[in-house]
Amino acid sequence: MLQPFDLPLEQLRAYRPELTKRPDFDAFWSDTLAELARVPLQSERARMPYPVRGLTVYRVFYPGFNHARIEAYLALPDSDRPLPGIVQYHGYNWGSDHNLHDTVNLALKGYAVLQMLVRGQQGESVDNVVSPNGHVSGWMTKGIQDRETYYYRGVYMDAVRAIEVLQGMPEVDASRIAVVGGSQGGAITLAAAALSDAPKLALAEYPYLSNFDRAIDIAPDGPYGELNEYFRRYSSYPEIEAKARETLAYFDVMNLAPRVQCRTWVCVGLVDTITPPSTVFAAYNHLACEKEIAVYRYYGHEGIPGSIAPRLQLLMDVLQDGDEV
Amino acid sequence: MLQPFDLPLEQLRAYRPELTKRPDFDAFWSDTLAELARVPLQSERARMPYPVRGLTVYRVFYPGFNHARIEAYLALPDSDRPLPGIVQYHGYNWGSDHNLHDTVNLALKGYAVLQMLVRGQQGESVDNVVSPNGHVSGWMTKGIQDRETYYYRGVYMDAVRAIEVLQGMPEVDASRIAVVGGSQGGAITLAAAALSDAPKLALAEYPYLSNFDRAIDIAPDGPYGELNEYFRRYSSYPEIEAKARETLAYFDVMNLAPRVQCRTWVCVGLVDTITPPSTVFAAYNHLACEKEIAVYRYYGHEGIPGSIAPRLQLLMDVLQDGDEV
Amino acid sequence: MLQPFDLPLEQLRAYRPELTKRPDFDAFWSDTLAELARVPLQSERARMPYPVRGLTVYRVFYPGFNHARIEAYLALPDSDRPLPGIVQYHGYNWGSDHNLHDTVNLALKGYAVLQMLVRGQQGESVDNVVSPNGHVSGWMTKGIQDRETYYYRGVYMDAVRAIEVLQGMPEVDASRIAVVGGSQGGAITLAAAALSDAPKLALAEYPYLSNFDRAIDIAPDGPYGELNEYFRRYSSYPEIEAKARETLAYFDVMNLAPRVQCRTWVCVGLVDTITPPSTVFAAYNHLACEKEIAVYRYYGHEGIPGSIAPRLQLLMDVLQDGDEV
Amino acid sequence: MLQPFDLPLEQLRAYRPELTKRPDFDAFWSDTLAELARVPLQSERARMPYPVRGLTVYRVFYPGFNHARIEAYLALPDSDRPLPGIVQYHGYNWGSDHNLHDTVNLALKGYAVLQMLVRGQQGESVDNVVSPNGHVSGWMTKGIQDRETYYYRGVYMDAVRAIEVLQGMPEVDASRIAVVGGSQGGAITLAAAALSDAPKLALAEYPYLSNFDRAIDIAPDGPYGELNEYFRRYSSYPEIEAKARETLAYFDVMNLAPRVQCRTWVCVGLVDTITPPSTVFAAYNHLACEKEIAVYRYYGHEGIPGSIAPRLQLLMDVLQDGDEV
Amino acid sequence: MLQPFDLPLEQLRAYRPELTKRPDFDAFWSDTLAELARVPLQSERARMPYPVRGLTVYRVFYPGFNHARIEAYLALPDSDRPLPGIVQYHGYNWGSDHNLHDTVNLALKGYAVLQMLVRGQQGESVDNVVSPNGHVSGWMTKGIQDRETYYYRGVYMDAVRAIEVLQGMPEVDASRIAVVGGSQGGAITLAAAALSDAPKLALAEYPYLSNFDRAIDIAPDGPYGELNEYFRRYSSYPEIEAKARETLAYFDVMNLAPRVQCRTWVCVGLVDTITPPSTVFAAYNHLACEKEIAVYRYYGHEGIPGSIAPRLQLLMDVLQDGDEV
Amino acid sequence: MLQPFDLPLEQLRAYRPELTKRPDFDAFWSDTLAELARVPLQSERARMPYPVRGLTVYRVFYPGFNHARIEAYLALPDSDRPLPGIVQYHGYNWGSDHNLHDTVNLALKGYAVLQMLVRGQQGESVDNVVSPNGHVSGWMTKGIQDRETYYYRGVYMDAVRAIEVLQGMPEVDASRIAVVGGSQGGAITLAAAALSDAPKLALAEYPYLSNFDRAIDIAPDGPYGELNEYFRRYSSYPEIEAKARETLAYFDVMNLAPRVQCRTWVCVGLVDTITPPSTVFAAYNHLACEKEIAVYRYYGHEGIPGSIAPRLQLLMDVLQDGDEV
Repeated sequence: MLQPFDLPLEQLRAYRPELTKRPDFDAFWSDTLAELARVPLQSERARMPYPVRGLTVYRVFYPGFNHARIEAYLALPDSDRPLPGIVQYHGYNWGSDHNLHDTVNLALKGYAVLQMLVRGQQGESVDNVVSPNGHVSGWMTKGIQDRETYYYRGVYMDAVRAIEVLQGMPEVDASRIAVVGGSQGGAITLAAAALSDAPKLALAEYPYLSNFDRAIDIAPDGPYGELNEYFRRYSSYPEIEAKARETLAYFDVMNLAPRVQCRTWVCVGLVDTITPPSTVFAAYNHLACEKEIAVYRYYGHEGIPGSIAPRLQLLMDVLQDGDEV
Repeated sequence: MLQPFDLPLEQLRAYRPELTKRPDFDAFWSDTLAELARVPLQSERARMPYPVRGLTVYRVFYPGFNHARIEAYLALPDSDRPLPGIVQYHGYNWGSDHNLHDTVNLALKGYAVLQMLVRGQQGESVDNVVSPNGHVSGWMTKGIQDRETYYYRGVYMDAVRAIEVLQGMPEVDASRIAVVGGSQGGAITLAAAALSDAPKLALAEYPYLSNFDRAIDIAPDGPYGELNEYFRRYSSYPEIEAKARETLAYFDVMNLAPRVQCRTWVCVGLVDTITPPSTVFAAYNHLACEKEIAVYRYYGHEGIPGSIAPRLQLLMDVLQDGDEV
Repeated sequence: MLQPFDLPLEQLRAYRPELTKRPDFDAFWSDTLAELARVPLQSERARMPYPVRGLTVYRVFYPGFNHARIEAYLALPDSDRPLPGIVQYHGYNWGSDHNLHDTVNLALKGYAVLQMLVRGQQGESVDNVVSPNGHVSGWMTKGIQDRETYYYRGVYMDAVRAIEVLQGMPEVDASRIAVVGGSQGGAITLAAAALSDAPKLALAEYPYLSNFDRAIDIAPDGPYGELNEYFRRYSSYPEIEAKARETLAYFDVMNLAPRVQCRTWVCVGLVDTITPPSTVFAAYNHLACEKEIAVYRYYGHEGIPGSIAPRLQLLMDVLQDGDEV
Repeated sequence: MLQPFDLPLEQLRAYRPELTKRPDFDAFWSDTLAELARVPLQSERARMPYPVRGLTVYRVFYPGFNHARIEAYLALPDSDRPLPGIVQYHGYNWGSDHNLHDTVNLALKGYAVLQMLVRGQQGESVDNVVSPNGHVSGWMTKGIQDRETYYYRGVYMDAVRAIEVLQGMPEVDASRIAVVGGSQGGAITLAAAALSDAPKLALAEYPYLSNFDRAIDIAPDGPYGELNEYFRRYSSYPEIEAKARETLAYFDVMNLAPRVQCRTWVCVGLVDTITPPSTVFAAYNHLACEKEIAVYRYYGHEGIPGSIAPRLQLLMDVLQDGDEV
Repeated sequence: MLQPFDLPLEQLRAYRPELTKRPDFDAFWSDTLAELARVPLQSERARMPYPVRGLTVYRVFYPGFNHARIEAYLALPDSDRPLPGIVQYHGYNWGSDHNLHDTVNLALKGYAVLQMLVRGQQGESVDNVVSPNGHVSGWMTKGIQDRETYYYRGVYMDAVRAIEVLQGMPEVDASRIAVVGGSQGGAITLAAAALSDAPKLALAEYPYLSNFDRAIDIAPDGPYGELNEYFRRYSSYPEIEAKARETLAYFDVMNLAPRVQCRTWVCVGLVDTITPPSTVFAAYNHLACEKEIAVYRYYGHEGIPGSIAPRLQLLMDVLQDGDEV
Repeated sequence: MLQPFDLPLEQLRAYRPELTKRPDFDAFWSDTLAELARVPLQSERARMPYPVRGLTVYRVFYPGFNHARIEAYLALPDSDRPLPGIVQYHGYNWGSDHNLHDTVNLALKGYAVLQMLVRGQQGESVDNVVSPNGHVSGWMTKGIQDRETYYYRGVYMDAVRAIEVLQGMPEVDASRIAVVGGSQGGAITLAAAALSDAPKLALAEYPYLSNFDRAIDIAPDGPYGELNEYFRRYSSYPEIEAKARETLAYFDVMNLAPRVQCRTWVCVGLVDTITPPSTVFAAYNHLACEKEIAVYRYYGHEGIPGSIAPRLQLLMDVLQDGDEV
C-alpha cells in the first residue's frame, strides 16, 4: 500500500470541507437533549470481583436515551479525596471482556473511570429504539431513514448521560471530567464534548463517524462500507440514499465539532484505511476550541504506542493539577 | 481447497447427529404459535409499477410476530382461475431490490408468489423484539440469551404468518401452497414447513441454521461465525456460551425437521463452506416426510443451475397437477 | 478500494479518446461481412424439455462464420401472433447450463429469445478458425497476430448471423429485434448493432473489448489481463506486441461504435475493475445514435438490480409498442 | 498450510491406485501412432542470433500430429563428434522467450537440445485439431468429449515426433536420447517415453496429467481445476462429466506408465498443491522400468535446486558415458 | 478455517511426544550456566519520565550472556516495603515502545516489574554472538549449525540473569519472584523457570519454541516457518537440516519442561496457528511441577482477555500472599 | 493493480531527486576503504563436485570487511588463456543452493565467475559486525543507528574485496572484470562499481537500496518495509528515525551513483512494487558514466527474459572483445 494513501500531510492540515449540517441542526440536538433530560438521572452499581488490591470494580446500570438500560464498568481506586473522573467510550463492535482491563489500568493511575458499553453492541446495554427500516448487518444503517430513529441518536445521548452519571458519584469531583475513546469511541468522545458542558478535556483517537461523504468514497471496506452496502441495495431508489445522507449529516462529528468547548486532543495515523486521515482532519479542522493533533506516520487503525504518554500527560495536567502530590 | 472439504458423501448420507432439543421443545413452539395466533391475520397491498405485461406486482404489509409490520412482495400473473401459491424466503442479509425480479420470474411460470422480507434485514420489515443483550454485528446473536427474545423466533413466526396471508388472498387456491428458499431462506422454509400445516411442498436449497454445534466448528467464516465471534467476547464467562447454545437448540432446523409433514426437497453443494454439507444432511436425515436430496459435487454456496429444473418440475407436479392444461 | 477507482464521473462523461481504427477499418468489415454472406443462412432446431407451461425451448444449430457449427438456445412463448425477438450474447467463459434459464425468463415476458453460445466457449459451438500462433490461456490472444485469424472475427460474425437466424423464424416478426448482453455479451451486442442493420434496440451492460489501450493499463487482472500476460511472453520481441495492438484496433468496440444506428442503452458500474468505467464511456461517447447510459455508483462487474426495470421498459417500449394489449 | 498436506510419505510410497484404462487403451495408442506415422518426418531450421560463443541456436519447424506446424528451439554446441540429444518439454501455459535460455544452458553442458513448443500454447506451434465442444479457458477440456479430438492426443504425438526429428539431425547420435520436462513437461516426458522406444532416459519433474480422478478432488485450484470448472457447467448433465472422465483415462500418464521401458527419474515436492504428491506417486508406482524418485520435503510446484545435480549426473551417466573425456 | 484445526482437545490433553533431548542435554546447560556465572552480576539504571504518579520507571542495563549489554525496563511503584518482583519476557520481533506500558500497568498492581528486551530484537540489547553460518531473515536459524552459537542460548541465559538482576535490587524481595510472558516470551518463561531456581511462579501464555519437529509440519507460516525456509535452502544438503534439528533439541522447551520446579500456569488458544495447541501441550504435558492449563476455544495467537484475571489472581496468591492488606 | 503503478515513463525518465548525501560522504567511504585495505588480500579454495564436463567449481573463502570470513562460489571453464571475470551478487535473503547453478551457467559462456555469498545471509559468510541496537527481522535496520555499524557497510566492502580476490586468481585476466546482480545484488553491483576502479562493466537489474526516502513511502510491503516497521517501533522517539535516515544516506546507491566510472547497464520493470521504478531511475539518472537502461513494461521484481540477451551481449562486447574467436 502506498503510504500515505490519503492526501499528503500538508493538504490534510488544510483540509476543511464545507459543513453539511441542515439549518435545524442545533434545534435537533436541543430537542434531543431535552428528550434525554426527561429520563431521570439515576444509576445502580454492583461490585465485580477483580484480582487487584487498592481498587474496586463495579458493574453500573443507568437509564439512557429512551429509558434504555445501559451498562457500564466502573473502576475506583482507593482514595480519601474526590477523584477526577474519566468516561471511556469503546470502538465499534469491540469485544467486551477485554475492555474491563483497560478501565482498570486507567483507574490505577488515579482516576474514577467509567466505561459505557454501547447500546446493542456490548454487555447488557439495550438498544430499544426500533428501526422502521431493514438495514445491513451492523449498526451504521439502523434507523437511517429518519434522524429520529437513527441508531447513533441514542448512543450520543447515552454518552452524555454517562458523564452525568459519573459526575453524580460520591467518590468523584464533578468539576474534573474527561471523555476519551478511539475510533467509534473517538466519535462519541467528540459528540459528548459537543453536546455536554461537563468535560474539561476530550481525547479522541482517530475518530470515526466524520465527513461521511468522503468516507463513503475512500473507506468502503471498513464499517463505513455498511453505507456503501446499504446504498447498493437501492440501485433503483436513489431517494433512499438521499434520505440516508440527510440523516447522517445530523450525526457527522465534523458538523458537531464547532460546538466543542473543552480542550481537545486528537490523533491520527497516516496509514489508517478505516478512518482515513482526511476524515479525521475534517473534524479536527472544524474544532474551534483549544486543540492539538498528533500525527503518526506509520500507524493505521490500531493502538498507537506513541500516543499513550501524551494522553496520560494531558490527563494529569488537566485533571490532577489541583491535587497535592 | 480440498473437494469435498467436509465428510465424504457416503458418510454424509449416514450423518444423523443426535437431536439437541430440550424436553419442552414442542411446548415452546406451541406457546409461540399461540402468541402468533393472537396477532390478527390481515394484510394490505399497494401496486408497484413493473414493466412486464400479464402480471401485477404489489408491496404487501402484514402484522407479523409481536405485531411487527412485515413487508412482502407479491407477484400475480393474470389468471381467471385460482392460482397455486408460493411463499419465498430470502437469504441472510441479502440485497433487496434484486429479490423482486426473482419473484416476478417465478410468478410468470403460473404462480401467485409472495416473498417475505425478513424483519430487520430488508425493506420496511420491522424487527421490534428488543434484545436485552448486546450482540455482534448481524442477527445471529441478537437476543440469544433468552429463547423468548432470540431473533429467529420472530422470523419463523413471520414466515408462518406469510403463508396464512397468501392463503387468504382471493386470487389464491389455499390448498396448493409451497414454501421455498435458499440458505437462510432454506432454513426458514424448513421451519415454516415444520410449524405450519399449510404447505404441500417445501424446497430448501442448502438450508442454514442447522446443526449449530457442528457448524461452529467447521464454518466459522460465514455468518455462523457470528456465534464464534460472540463466544470470543466472553472468554471469562463460559455460562454465556452455554446459555446461547441452549437457546440455539430451540431454533436448530435439525430439531424442527421431524415435524415436517409435506413433501420436501433439499439440495446441497459439496464445496459449500458457508452451510457445510454435513449440517445440511443433519437436517435432511432427520426429516420423516416424503423427501429427496439433490447433491451437487462441484458447487458451493451459490445458485446451482442444475437445481432449477428439478425445482420447477416439483412445483408443477405438486401445485399445478390439478390444472387442466 | 477507493470508489470510484477510475476517473471521476464528470471526467468519464467527457472521456472520448481518439479512435484507433486504421484506414481500411470499414473495408475490413465489409470484406468480413461478405465472407459471412457466402455461408448459407440456415438453421435447425430440436426441442428440449423444460418444466414450465406456455413456452417451448429448443436447441438451435446454424452455420456461423467459416461454416462453423454454432449452437443457440431458443425460447418461444405460446403466441398466435408474430413475436418480437431478442438475441442474447453471454459473458466471457460463462457457465452454460445457467444461461438457459435467463433465456426462458426473458421469453416469458413476451419475446422470442435466442441465446447464441459463443464459439469455443460454450455448448457445442465450434471455433474452427485455427490460430497460427500460440496464445495464453483463454481466447483474448487467439489468432491475434493477424486480423484475419483473430478470435473475435468469427464471434462477431456469428452474432450477426444469429440475428438473421432469429429473423428468419416463422414465429418472429423480423422488424422488431433487439440485441442484448453484458460484459463480453455487451461488446458483442455493440458489435452486432454496428455490423447489422437489423436491430431496433441494443442493450449493452458494461461492454467489454473497448478501448484496449487503456484497459491494458488499468484492468490487467480481469480477462483484459490476458493481453498483458501475452505481452510478457515477448519481452524480447516488441514487434509482436505492436502487431497484436494493430489487430485489436479492428475489434475495439470503441472503433465500431460510430457505426451503430439503432437506439442504444449502456450501463456501467463505477467500481467495475473488470471493464473499467472509462473503457465503457470510451465506447459510449463514440456512439452517434440515440443513446443513454445508466450509471451505478456502488456496483462493479456484476448483475445490477437497478438496471433490470429500465431494460425491460425499453424492450417493451421499442419492441412491444405495436402490440395490442 | 499443513506440510505435507497430502498423504504422509510412507503412504505415498505405497500409493498405487488401480489403473483406469479401458480395454482398447493400447489399441487406441497404436492407431494414434499409426496416424502420426502417416505424417512425413521432416523439419527445417533457421539460425537465431544468440550472444554466446561455441554454440548455435535455431528455430526448427516440423509437421506434427495432423500435419500441424510445430515450432521448436534447437541449441547445438560446437562439436566434431555426434552429440547426445535431449528433448525438452515445457510446462503448461509457460512463457516462451524465457525457455530459450534454459535450452541454451543445457546445451552448453554438451548436448544437442531440442525444446518443443507445445501446440497452441507457445511460439508458432499450431493446434489444428478443432474441438467439437466448447471448453473452459485453457486446454484441459479442449475436445474432451471425444478421445479422438482431445487436446493432448496431438501434444503427445508431437512429442514423439520431436524425438524423431532430433534423432534425424546430422549432429546427433540417435542412440543417445533423453526426454526431460517438468509439470506438463513431466507428463509429456512420461508419455513420450511410453509411446516411443527411442529415449534412453526420462527425467520427469512433478509430472502433471496423472491420476485425474484424485487430482480433481485434491488440486482444483491449479490447472486441474479446469476440469472442476468444466464439470460445474454441466450440473444438469452428468453424462458430460462421465464422458470427459472416460476420455481422460486414455491420457492419464498413470495409465501410460507401465509402457515406459527406459530408465526413469521422477521428482516430487511434498508441498506441491498443483500436482499433488499422491498423483505423482500414482504414476511413479506404476512404472515398471528402472526408476528412482527424489522427494523434496519443503518444495512445492517450483524449480527445486536440489534436483539439478542429480539430473545433470544422470544425463552424464546415461548419455555421455561412451564419450572419451 | 476448521476449528480447532489441530488435534481434538481430548487428544491434546494426552499428547506427550517422546522427548528429543540428547544424552548430554543437562551437561550442556550446566556448562552454559557456568559460562553465565563468569559474567559479573551487575546493573545500572536511569530514570525515564513517565506521566503517572506513584510509580517510577527506569531503563536498566546489565551484562548478559557473553557479556552482551542487555537493556530492560523497570517499573517500581512507590512502596515502603520490599516488593514482590516479576520478570517479563516479550514476544518475537515485537514492537518496543508499546511494551513499556504493559510493564507500568503490571507494576501499578503492586509489583516491581522488570521487562528484559530480547537481544538483537529490541531497544539496545546487543546480540554479540556471531553466527558462523548465514541464516534466513529473523533469529530462528541464527547460529543454528552449532548449539554453542545458537541464538537462543544467549537469550535463555540473559533471561536467567534478568531474574538475578531483579532479585538484587534493594526495593525487591528476592524470595517472591515470578516470570511471565507470551509466545516467545512464554518459551523464555519456561526456559528461565527450568534453568533458574529463583522463580516461585511461571505464567506462560501459548509458549513458542516447543516441539519443533511437529511445529515444522503444522505451523510453517509463522516464525516457525523460518526453519522451513532454511531447510529449503539446503535441498542438496540434508546434513544441514539434520544438524539444525540436533541443535534445536537443546532449546526445545518441551525438553526443558521436566526441569521446572515452580508452580506453572500455561494457556493456549485452540485456533492458534502460530504456536499450534499440540506444541503447547507437548511442553505442558512434560511439566512435572504443580501446574495448570487454561484452554480458550475461540482464541488464536493473540491477547486472550479471559486469561488476564486468572494470571493476576495467581500473582496475588503466590507473590502477595504474605503481605498484610 | 494499475499498470504502471508508479510515475508514468516520461516522468520516470526525468526523475532525478536531489542527492541526500552529507558533506563527509566521500570521506566516510575513503575511511571505510582504508579500513578494508588493512585486511590482507588472500583467499583459499576447495573443489566442489559438479556434474558437468569442461568446468570446475570451487568454494572460495576470503577475509572480508572486519576480517569476516566470506564464502563465494567460483566456476572456471577449462581454458588455456586468461579468462575474463565476473563477480555476481545475489538478491536479498535469497536461497543459496540454487545460486550455484546460475554461476555455472554463466561460466559456461566463457567467464571465470565468482559469486559472493552475502554476509549473514548465505552459506558460511559471517556477519561479524555487532549491532549496538535491536532491529527488526532482516538486515535492513541492523546497526542502523550508526553509519559505522550499519550492516551494508560490511557488505559493500566485501563486494569490493570480492573483485580483488577474483582479479588475483591465476586463471583470470584482471583487466577484464564485470560486476553483475539483481535487486540487492543490483545495489551491491552499483556500490562496487562506485567504490572500486576495477570493473569495466556493471549490469544492475532493478537495483535495491536506492532513494530510501521515496521507497519508504511507496514500497513498504517489500524489504524496504523493514524500515517502516522499524520506525513504527519508535512512535515516541522521532530522533531514532532521524538518525536512521541519516545513516541510510551514506548507503543510498543514488548517492553513490555519480562515482561510477565504468559502463553501466540497468534494467527496470514498470510493475515492480519491491524496487519501484522511480527508485531505480533515481539511481540511474544520477549515473554520470556511459550508461543505458532497459525498461520492461509488463515485468515486476522477477527474472525478465528479455534482459538476458542484452546482458550476454554486453558481457561479450566488453569482456570478450580482445579474444580471438
